[in-house]
Formats: sequence, C-alpha cells, structure tokens
Amino acid sequence: MRVKDGDWFTEVCDEAGSAFSLRVTKKLYNERSRYQTIEVYETSHFGNLLVLDGFVMLNARDNFIYHEMMSHPALYTHPHPKRVLVIGGGDCGCLGEVLKHREVIAAELVELDERVTRVSEQFFPELCAASNDPRASLHFTDGVAWVARAEPGAYDIIIVDSTDPIGQAARLFQAPFYASCRRALGDEGVLIVQSESPLIHLELIHSIRSEMGKAGFQHVSTLHFPQCAYPSGWWSATLAGGRFPHAEFRDSDARAKRFTTRYYNADIHRSALAQPTFMQER
Amino acid sequence: MRVKDGDWFTEVCDEAGSAFSLRVTKKLYNERSRYQTIEVYETSHFGNLLVLDGFVMLNARDNFIYHEMMSHPALYTHPHPKRVLVIGGGDCGCLGEVLKHREVIAAELVELDERVTRVSEQFFPELCAASNDPRASLHFTDGVAWVARAEPGAYDIIIVDSTDPIGQAARLFQAPFYASCRRALGDEGVLIVQSESPLIHLELIHSIRSEMGKAGFQHVSTLHFPQCAYPSGWWSATLAGGRFPHAEFRDSDARAKRFTTRYYNADIHRSALAQPTFMQER
Repeated sequence: MRVKDGDWFTEVCDEAGSAFSLRVTKKLYNERSRYQTIEVYETSHFGNLLVLDGFVMLNARDNFIYHEMMSHPALYTHPHPKRVLVIGGGDCGCLGEVLKHREVIAAELVELDERVTRVSEQFFPELCAASNDPRASLHFTDGVAWVARAEPGAYDIIIVDSTDPIGQAARLFQAPFYASCRRALGDEGVLIVQSESPLIHLELIHSIRSEMGKAGFQHVSTLHFPQCAYPSGWWSATLAGGRFPHAEFRDSDARAKRFTTRYYNADIHRSALAQPTFMQER
Repeated sequence: MRVKDGDWFTEVCDEAGSAFSLRVTKKLYNERSRYQTIEVYETSHFGNLLVLDGFVMLNARDNFIYHEMMSHPALYTHPHPKRVLVIGGGDCGCLGEVLKHREVIAAELVELDERVTRVSEQFFPELCAASNDPRASLHFTDGVAWVARAEPGAYDIIIVDSTDPIGQAARLFQAPFYASCRRALGDEGVLIVQSESPLIHLELIHSIRSEMGKAGFQHVSTLHFPQCAYPSGWWSATLAGGRFPHAEFRDSDARAKRFTTRYYNADIHRSALAQPTFMQER
C-alpha cells in the first residue's frame, strides 16, 4: 500500500471550517473492524499515524503531551491512587503513563474494540510495552456497562480516553455515565475525560462540566494543553471529583516524581489549570 | 474575486510535513506590494484571514491570543512601562493591546510595509482603531535601522511582531539586533519577540535565547500559548531583559487591570512561563 510521493492525510473539521494534514510516505495498514475503520500511515515528520473512521487518534511525535496530561494530573490530584480504570484508550498510551506511578496496584483498560489495541501493538509498540506489566489487565467490552456494574468505590481514578462525542462515544459525555463513575469512585476518587478543543468546542466543555455537576461531582476543572494533530491544535481534559479543589494537588510529590515525562511536570500541571478569560466567562 | 464553494486556503509547513487549511468563502483582496504579496480571504468560521507571501498572518477569530500574549506579559514585567516600540506588527493588533495600558505615554509602530497597515485598516478595522490614539505614531521604515539609531534607554518595551525568520525578517532573530534593543531599552527595559512553535522550531527558540544572551540580556524566558492557525497550533514568544526574574512580574497590577482581555489574565501570564519538560531539557 504505497502512496505516491507528496500525498497527504487530511482531517477536515466541519464545525470549524478547518483542516489539518500530515504528509504521508506510506499507508501501513487498513482494516474495517466490527466497530470502525482503522488506518495506520507512515508520515514524513510525525512518525506513525493512527486514524479511526477518518479522525486522527494519535501520531508518534506529539501523543506524549496528550497521554501525560490525561494521566498525571488526575493521579497527583488523588492522595493515594491505587486502582485505576481507563475507558477507551486502546492504544495503551494512558495505561503506560498510569503504570509509571509505583503506588498503582491495579490498572484496568476497558476498550470496546480489541482491534485498536492489536493494531497499536504492531505499529506503536512504544505505547504498548506497559500492557505486559503484571498490574495491568485489558478487557475488550463496553466501558459504560463496565462502570455501571462496578462495586461502589472500586476505583481511585477513572480516565476516559474516548473518541469524539459521536455514536457509541456520545454516552461518555453525559450525566448517567458520570453518575456511574461517581459511584464507582467514592468520595476521594478522581475522574478525567478528554473534552475536545477550548477554541472550537467551548459549548461541549460547558455541557460536560454541567453534566458532571448533575452527577454529583463537587469539584470540576478543565485543563488545557497543545495537541498539534487535533482540530485547532489546542485540546482540553476535564477533571472531576476529589475532596479538595484541584489546585491543591500533590505538588511536592509531582516535583519529586521518579519517572520521566516529556511534557508534564508540577509547573505544567498548575499552569494547565489556569483558565483563559474567555473560558472563565463562559 | 469569488472562490467556488468548498475552496480552501492552505499553508504548508515544509519543515514539519504538515498543513493547515481554512475554508474560504471569498477572496477579498490581492496585492503585490514593494515587499510581499498581500492577500485577504473571507473564511467560513474564522472571519477575515490575512496572508503574506502565502503564510497566515492572522485571522479574526484567534488573533486575540497572539496579540494579548505578545503585549501584556512584557508590559506587566516592566515596573512602569511608558514608552513602547513595536517592530513589525503592521496589522496594529499589538499596538491596540499596548495602548490599553494607561501608563503608556507613547507607542511607536515601525513597520517596513505600509501596505500591510492600510490593508488591515480596511479588513481588520477592529485591530486598527487604536492607531488614532494620540499616544500612537506609525513609521513605515526598517525596524533594525530604527532601533540601531535610537537613543540609549529610549524605550521601556520593545515588541518584535515579525514574520518568520526568512529574508528581511531573519535579522530580527540575531544578536546584533538584540544588542541594539538592549541599548535602546536600558537596564529595566523588556524585549519580547515572537519565537515560532515549541514543537517544530525548538532549535530556533534555543538560538534566539542564545543570541539574546550574547546581546547582554540577563533574564530570558519563553512563553507559550495556543495559536490555531500557525504551524502545530502552538506558538511561543521569548521575553528578555528587566531587572528581575520574569516570574516576579506585576501580578497584583495584572489582577487589578481596568481593561478587558479575552485570553490574558495574571494566572495565564504565570502559566505561560511554565516550561514543558522537553523544553527545559533543550
């Protein structure tokens, strides 16, 4: 599956009238799984690129920013995160970041489409190494039902690394699911969900925050960070739960962390919580 | 100059193998000035778009982030900014932000190409209103020569709102120009320059910082912020000068500011100074 020189992969964002393209040197993989079309391209400057149903999921160059920001802020917000659930995130990137925390004793990944994980193991082995960790377990089933059936207080952290709020994934942005998460987390537990672009999807972010409030979460904060290959190049994650305001995270533990990160650090954690004026106003 | 439905303006970033596109509904203007090709498009979701020599300069939707971050952090770093020089910035967006500070008594804009300003007055009137302020003066000449001839200590703030380091603009990224700025600023003066993308142009940022050091600036900091329509969607500005480390900016004045901003606030100022781990390491 060679593409001719000068070819591009382009994702159009209809709701913003914008498009982002990466120059591709080869199409490495194509599959129609039970749930979606899975494609992998080799790009000229961003390493391998994973695309689901035509939407960029990740590339080898900048996925570290997303995976670190979806994981470490939540874990350093909880006083002693031991049991972590990742919903979606079949590429195992978040799972790998979670398992860098030594105090985690169990990390479960619940991904609907096993093929995403198997394809990621082949084309993004650097993200999937951690799934061999004895603390990790992978379950290929529906995340909404999984959380609904979970014991109260079963988890300290739930990370929702979902696709856009379309089709199956739409339920992951609504109060009934957040209420299940609230129950599965207990009072100290922390939820984090990817919440799209501050510039393009401000109304969706507002809706997510409002649905989290309806589900009984007292503290809700939106973090923001760059993510080159997603629409607008600017992305967010919304944090809910915990006993304390999110600015009171374990700053000194984050400063003393014994593992490496490429984007995240305690200053970046605090800075990601700062709200631009237009977000405060909404 | 109608474009047909479904047309796009696309900027390719060769050094990153990426491209960004905006859907355009009309081409509003085209001119070959003495220095460059100036184009203006009407876009579907980003308002008017200004393009110089094929590179996106600004659009009506997100330029506020860039102009605020190129202006307010520098002004709140200086104890009492009265005299401000903007090099480039012919669209007058930075000038408008600078003039929001009441303590500024004179703001000079030195832009090489008068046509950029005249075209901006026509298609971005919201950015140019401030150029009628009696404290503002516009000079259409070479910024490098202007700073070289300035009296020592003539300015409190110099803002370099330049195009990419290609052709005429390359001199704005080098030590001889920064040494002229250092002299024109005196010991308390603060320089800020746009310094491209942290993800794509990390070596350039390193070079700018190093050239500033050679020019005698003791304090150098790189701020970062989203900028959707520039390559990678993530941009930076590098701050130099002042008597104190840049984290000691006038935080309480920034919190008590009497003018409106849409992105900037004191928390955002502090957060923009936080360095991602990979930037610290470089």
